[in-house]
Amino acid sequence: MKNVIVGQSGGPTAVINSSLLGVYKTAKDRGADTVYGMVHGIKGLLDRDIADLSERFKTDLDMDLLKRTPSSFLGSCRYKLPDIEGNEAVYEKIFAVLNELDICAFFYIGGNDSMDTIMRLTDYGERINSPVRFVGIPKTIDNDLALTDHTPGFGSAAKYIASTVKEIIRDGLVYDYPVVSVIEIMGRNAGWLTAASALAKGEDCEGVDDIYLPERAFDIDKFLAHTGGLLKENRSLVIAVSEGIKTADGRYVCELSEHVDYTDAFGHKQLAGTARYLARRIAERYKVKTRAIELSSLQRCAGHIQSRIDVTEAYNCGGAGVKAAFEGKSGIVVTLKRVSDDPYMCITETADVHKIANIEKKVPDGWITEDGTNVTRELVHYIFPLIQAEITPLWVNGLPRHIRLHKKNTGK
Amino acid sequence: MKNVIVGQSGGPTAVINSSLLGVYKTAKDRGADTVYGMVHGIKGLLDRDIADLSERFKTDLDMDLLKRTPSSFLGSCRYKLPDIEGNEAVYEKIFAVLNELDICAFFYIGGNDSMDTIMRLTDYGERINSPVRFVGIPKTIDNDLALTDHTPGFGSAAKYIASTVKEIIRDGLVYDYPVVSVIEIMGRNAGWLTAASALAKGEDCEGVDDIYLPERAFDIDKFLAHTGGLLKENRSLVIAVSEGIKTADGRYVCELSEHVDYTDAFGHKQLAGTARYLARRIAERYKVKTRAIELSSLQRCAGHIQSRIDVTEAYNCGGAGVKAAFEGKSGIVVTLKRVSDDPYMCITETADVHKIANIEKKVPDGWITEDGTNVTRELVHYIFPLIQAEITPLWVNGLPRHIRLHKKNTGK
Repeated sequence: MKNVIVGQSGGPTAVINSSLLGVYKTAKDRGADTVYGMVHGIKGLLDRDIADLSERFKTDLDMDLLKRTPSSFLGSCRYKLPDIEGNEAVYEKIFAVLNELDICAFFYIGGNDSMDTIMRLTDYGERINSPVRFVGIPKTIDNDLALTDHTPGFGSAAKYIASTVKEIIRDGLVYDYPVVSVIEIMGRNAGWLTAASALAKGEDCEGVDDIYLPERAFDIDKFLAHTGGLLKENRSLVIAVSEGIKTADGRYVCELSEHVDYTDAFGHKQLAGTARYLARRIAERYKVKTRAIELSSLQRCAGHIQSRIDVTEAYNCGGAGVKAAFEGKSGIVVTLKRVSDDPYMCITETADVHKIANIEKKVPDGWITEDGTNVTRELVHYIFPLIQAEITPLWVNGLPRHIRLHKKNTGK
Repeated sequence: MKNVIVGQSGGPTAVINSSLLGVYKTAKDRGADTVYGMVHGIKGLLDRDIADLSERFKTDLDMDLLKRTPSSFLGSCRYKLPDIEGNEAVYEKIFAVLNELDICAFFYIGGNDSMDTIMRLTDYGERINSPVRFVGIPKTIDNDLALTDHTPGFGSAAKYIASTVKEIIRDGLVYDYPVVSVIEIMGRNAGWLTAASALAKGEDCEGVDDIYLPERAFDIDKFLAHTGGLLKENRSLVIAVSEGIKTADGRYVCELSEHVDYTDAFGHKQLAGTARYLARRIAERYKVKTRAIELSSLQRCAGHIQSRIDVTEAYNCGGAGVKAAFEGKSGIVVTLKRVSDDPYMCITETADVHKIANIEKKVPDGWITEDGTNVTRELVHYIFPLIQAEITPLWVNGLPRHIRLHKKNTGK
């Protein structure tokens, strides 16, 4: 038997380390000699910054902590592999390292951009007749991967969002005068996470009043008019908006007021200030108290609120990827297929990476209400099973305990 | 035996309802006929918006949920009683309602501003020889009340902040290039909450790099120079700043860039944007990726992270207030006295409301490091016992369950 290598890439989630654990334990169970970890993804491989995971995962407690530790244990990167044509040297270097480490299977836990890495390595591997198998393990809080019912990471983020929104609603309705709270939720182009705010509503909670997703063009005048209509009832409001809502001419709402802070390596604009802009517009128009609340990176790193369903599925996706690779598959991504809603049942399958990389799955138009101010029951029913059950943090000295790769801060 | 009335005022906390429960159960245990709740504080009393709490708290489950429900169950207000001189009509109205309801004791759960209400009602009551007793129950996440070791609400907020900061640190150090995360934490004039970020540091966490409290004048040039010094190590940074940091000439840092959204009924400026302003300045100066994270109202409404110590003490403060009133005391505030650090032990006492109302307790200068970029071990040791032990949320359908006064949204 040979060795395997695993990396984590893109934005972290609360359960990305459960997928890492799934890869590690399944590979060891199936006879892998050494399970290597790329430190900071494919960039770490290129820099030969590689860890032997057996040296770090010694006890059951280590693995229990790993499941509960948010963000990418191995570190992440946003490095995108260049086109093969004209950049063969990069690929030669990668395959030289894989050869040197006697790697039979390469696993990459990530989202759209990371699956692009799997696709290119698969294509180059085929060209040189490499025996290495390349498998993508899905991960993204954004839930925007194609061909999978949902993505590991989404359920825990949705659970965090719905739980937090419930609390913000209790807080937001406390005064005897109207306050409008505008909550900004992650999602550049897909509104799945913002839609999760709809789950707050129940017999113990009023729910949010309106939900605006990026799938529909945002009309600031209609928004203000609709909000004004609700304010006629002289009550407090809580409104959920996606960070990525855009006007019909394609401009981000946050760009209407403030400059974009920077653009990342993939050309994604870093957005901030949508809620603040809208809160200010409401305050100006209706002379009402407003609050802007950004859930910010807590949505993806709140390891203290994990969906047990999500943790289990993240682990299973890791395991299914190893199983597929050891059975000879390559150039694939593990996907989730929902076989039943009630009781909820989901199985793993695999799909050709070429059909997943760089494709974004958005919220279907039929799951948004006609006037674009809310989501339908179908969407709530879709998300509901994904936030069920809990994993309790391991509290030590009053705080959730984590595990980290480097015992000392290496500054990375 | 007669009736009692209780209200909640000012900003909510995660445990203010535990104090409400302490008042309710202790008053009932000691023979009160009816425990009334003012809906939206003293303003509800004036409007005769009053609830009979026994009708809402029927089962043990109701009370278990009340402990776990953040924000003020009875609603809050920011209404400040006017000077007695020239405004006797307001006081006559209040005492007429108290008389009508056959009230023997009046409890108000709140912070500095709310204790002003207790003080004025005590003074007016003495003037008219009223038999009603007035007792303040301390509550504020800000921990800025005088004469008490700490305030109920602070421990849970500190636990939330330290837990969340640990997660943000895991997330913030994930990439292979430097990212500077600036976390904005509540506290206009007192830095207690921001100081709680120091508790994140431990054998499983690098901790925050710098902490800036409002007790020291903030120098933007020194801040940038210090941050630049840390960036020479080419690593990611996490910096905690109080929303209330001010320059030597008394201007809030957030005012250096953006306008103040509004001023509340007590003349407090609503601050926002300190972290964003600093993150942008760092990005401009050092061409480094930055992130601004506002913990915002989640700090005070995160009922899913409660310190069990805090919940118990909040309950005890409510109970001690009832005991004192039933023993004939009036014009007092319940305080906490720490009698031992290890093991941690705290008892309740009472203090004259005139010595507490409208006074802010700040972080002692000696608990801030000389260069003003961090806090001392003494401050960490002071906060440490207050965040210990947990109360698990009652998860129903994947979300923390709450209880609310009105079964339907009344719009208040």
